[in-house]
Amino acid sequence: MTVHLKDLGRAVLETEYAVRGPIVARAQELEKQGREIIYCNIGNPQSLGQKPLTWNRQILALCEYPELMAAASGAFPVDVVETARAILAGTRHGLGAYSESRGVRFIREAVAEFILERDHMRVDPDAIFLTDGASKGVQTILRLLIAGPEDGIMIPIPQYPLYSATITLYEGRMVPYYLDEAQGWKLNRAMLEQSLAEAKAQGTRVKAICVINPGNPTGAVLDEDNIGMILDFAQAHGLSVLADEVYQENIYLAGDTFTSFAKVLHQKDLRDVSLFSFHSCSKGFLGECGVRGGYFEYRNVPEDVAAQILKLQSVSLCANLAGQVATYAMVRPPKPGMPSYATYAAERAAILDALKHRALLLAEGLNRIEGITCNVIAGAMYAFPSITLPPGRTDFDYAMALLEQTGICVVPGSGFGQAEGTAHFRTTILPPTEKIQQVVKDLAEFHRTYR
Amino acid sequence: MTVHLKDLGRAVLETEYAVRGPIVARAQELEKQGREIIYCNIGNPQSLGQKPLTWNRQILALCEYPELMAAASGAFPVDVVETARAILAGTRHGLGAYSESRGVRFIREAVAEFILERDHMRVDPDAIFLTDGASKGVQTILRLLIAGPEDGIMIPIPQYPLYSATITLYEGRMVPYYLDEAQGWKLNRAMLEQSLAEAKAQGTRVKAICVINPGNPTGAVLDEDNIGMILDFAQAHGLSVLADEVYQENIYLAGDTFTSFAKVLHQKDLRDVSLFSFHSCSKGFLGECGVRGGYFEYRNVPEDVAAQILKLQSVSLCANLAGQVATYAMVRPPKPGMPSYATYAAERAAILDALKHRALLLAEGLNRIEGITCNVIAGAMYAFPSITLPPGRTDFDYAMALLEQTGICVVPGSGFGQAEGTAHFRTTILPPTEKIQQVVKDLAEFHRTYR
Repeated sequence: MTVHLKDLGRAVLETEYAVRGPIVARAQELEKQGREIIYCNIGNPQSLGQKPLTWNRQILALCEYPELMAAASGAFPVDVVETARAILAGTRHGLGAYSESRGVRFIREAVAEFILERDHMRVDPDAIFLTDGASKGVQTILRLLIAGPEDGIMIPIPQYPLYSATITLYEGRMVPYYLDEAQGWKLNRAMLEQSLAEAKAQGTRVKAICVINPGNPTGAVLDEDNIGMILDFAQAHGLSVLADEVYQENIYLAGDTFTSFAKVLHQKDLRDVSLFSFHSCSKGFLGECGVRGGYFEYRNVPEDVAAQILKLQSVSLCANLAGQVATYAMVRPPKPGMPSYATYAAERAAILDALKHRALLLAEGLNRIEGITCNVIAGAMYAFPSITLPPGRTDFDYAMALLEQTGICVVPGSGFGQAEGTAHFRTTILPPTEKIQQVVKDLAEFHRTYR
Repeated sequence: MTVHLKDLGRAVLETEYAVRGPIVARAQELEKQGREIIYCNIGNPQSLGQKPLTWNRQILALCEYPELMAAASGAFPVDVVETARAILAGTRHGLGAYSESRGVRFIREAVAEFILERDHMRVDPDAIFLTDGASKGVQTILRLLIAGPEDGIMIPIPQYPLYSATITLYEGRMVPYYLDEAQGWKLNRAMLEQSLAEAKAQGTRVKAICVINPGNPTGAVLDEDNIGMILDFAQAHGLSVLADEVYQENIYLAGDTFTSFAKVLHQKDLRDVSLFSFHSCSKGFLGECGVRGGYFEYRNVPEDVAAQILKLQSVSLCANLAGQVATYAMVRPPKPGMPSYATYAAERAAILDALKHRALLLAEGLNRIEGITCNVIAGAMYAFPSITLPPGRTDFDYAMALLEQTGICVVPGSGFGQAEGTAHFRTTILPPTEKIQQVVKDLAEFHRTYR
């Protein structure tokens, strides 16, 4: 054979993505052998029984096959038909043609309106790019920023491994900063300064800081003060900011709200910090992971750099059009008074209420287990509890044994990074309520007896 | 601002993608000003009026919104309903969940059967990856193969600029080999040997050869002998082969057939040449560019390398599910006797007949213009005619002037590469027949007077 492992590059070989790593592979093996597996490893709501929103799917069906507007008009509410018509007119050629590299302008204008309503400020539709899920957007921006092997990107520990994997693939340096577990996983200026100083001392040119809010895997929701602190830090050191805001609809505590980095950037009138924000159709209450829809938007990016972003996106032609349409459906839900509103509101409430209930149930259940401690799950779709381990055992051993003994599939904390001397795992809050109860019960028994 | 052009890397800055470059940007400007533009720059059939196949779109609509099976059963033939049901069962969770990283196994099994019928040989469904269009597959395999800055990939000149752009982004070296314009753009062993020898003399570690068949932008269709020669060459020098076969259904000359690299590899029983083959929903008679569907399959790849491919794909989670479904619809068309067959066959024939007619019309028309010479367009969707230029003018000047004067948008040959001292442009054969006639007429007038 002409391709051999020994000829592959370090970048490829060292890339790791624990969310789909060896524990998941083993779970699939066990499942083939007939074992029941509870997949808590990945934020994939519809694989665990969550239903798609009728609004989204009716619009997608009509856009895929517009003849249905005549052939089955009775099957669709009039607002769905009108919306599908407007989208098809906006695409000009339907879902079968490549769009502009940035995505269909009509849809980007809708995204700009969504941001205007959310943050009370305008954004240029040409500073918005529709992407195949948020991951592709993050990859593009990291590709843009990493110019050489000394370039570093600050990432949280624990982090979502898309960041570590992509930085490794582009042969940059990861500059880890720790989230403060004792303070509900918030960011801490002293810890940011320390991380940056250490990186600089090693000759790293730090280019940007990535923040995930609400947090994956931590479940933390950052407040305006914490976001302002991060932006001040970025400004003080000339860093760009990547704000991963894919869980912005997943907020569970009474009184908490989502605040975007873009909003705080404008409130503070920081014109010298370049900001890239990411959103997705895969999370929130849509959970449309398979659609691969999403967008990124940027602020304070010079025109010549913006042209480079456009060029990078153009090599992949455009994001898939069904995903672009799903993004439209996400940012333009039916409004009160429209025929689809009642169903939409009921479906949304049922999903968010269930997630809220499971977040509470899971954190409480985990905290009742001796040797497991879990912060409040304020947002996103995960718990990242701290666990005590018997001597000589790693969190990987623990997660594998948990799988073998109980069928519960979680990801070891080492896949996300964790403070020296601590051990964790990540579990989603997505299984149905009765399964969450089973997870807590089986985990308690497993943890008590694990040696 | 914290991001500046001067801080970007060479890889990003040097990447070029002419298919969506400055000429297209100027065309869009002119269009906004009210000029009629004939877009001949990109293989985007549905943007030029080609209709999607009913089979595909009915299946996609039902998979997006399965409630239609009950609510609008009269709108769909029974074979469409059965197929959608089978696909949904195969995905297990519908289109809203991430699939396995390789793509839905049920669909990969259908792809394996398609290859079995086409080439009369088996392929392991786990050696097939469903991708967001062929481009994403090519990017993955090039990322795999390029291990360092001395690594080179042989690419045809002229080539499709996805290859040059991706190799530049991954900081490898392009090793150009010339296609033989005088011999209908076929590959020539002596020219391959020469190109390889020159690269080696410069210290390049040549890893692989890319071949596009049918050819983009050349329109050439390679026969079994030519493919066998290329595989022998690869074997002799320990090269892997990337076979871009996205135009395999676009064959226009009586007596010509498409022969896959995989088939010839097996016939010659070459077990030591690693082969990666790419296919797409975007071309052929489907023309579903916006869907971003496709696959790659590999042969003679060791298991440890295959595991690295799986890992790379897992970072992006999976290809979009609508694209995966479209791939199923592509490889499993209705068969004679099924209710959808007559419509499917009529739609397919109309599209392929029109393309064949336009290929002939365009090549003949171009050859009637003094100073323009065009090979027979045997396959794919493009002509790449050779043009004479007045002294001091480049093909870029020519294409820009053509656009300004006539509204015809083509891509200069320099975007694809061309032999020293020659000049070309690429035009698609996709505009409706009357527009093709207009292109030929306007081009003749333009070429006669261009100074």
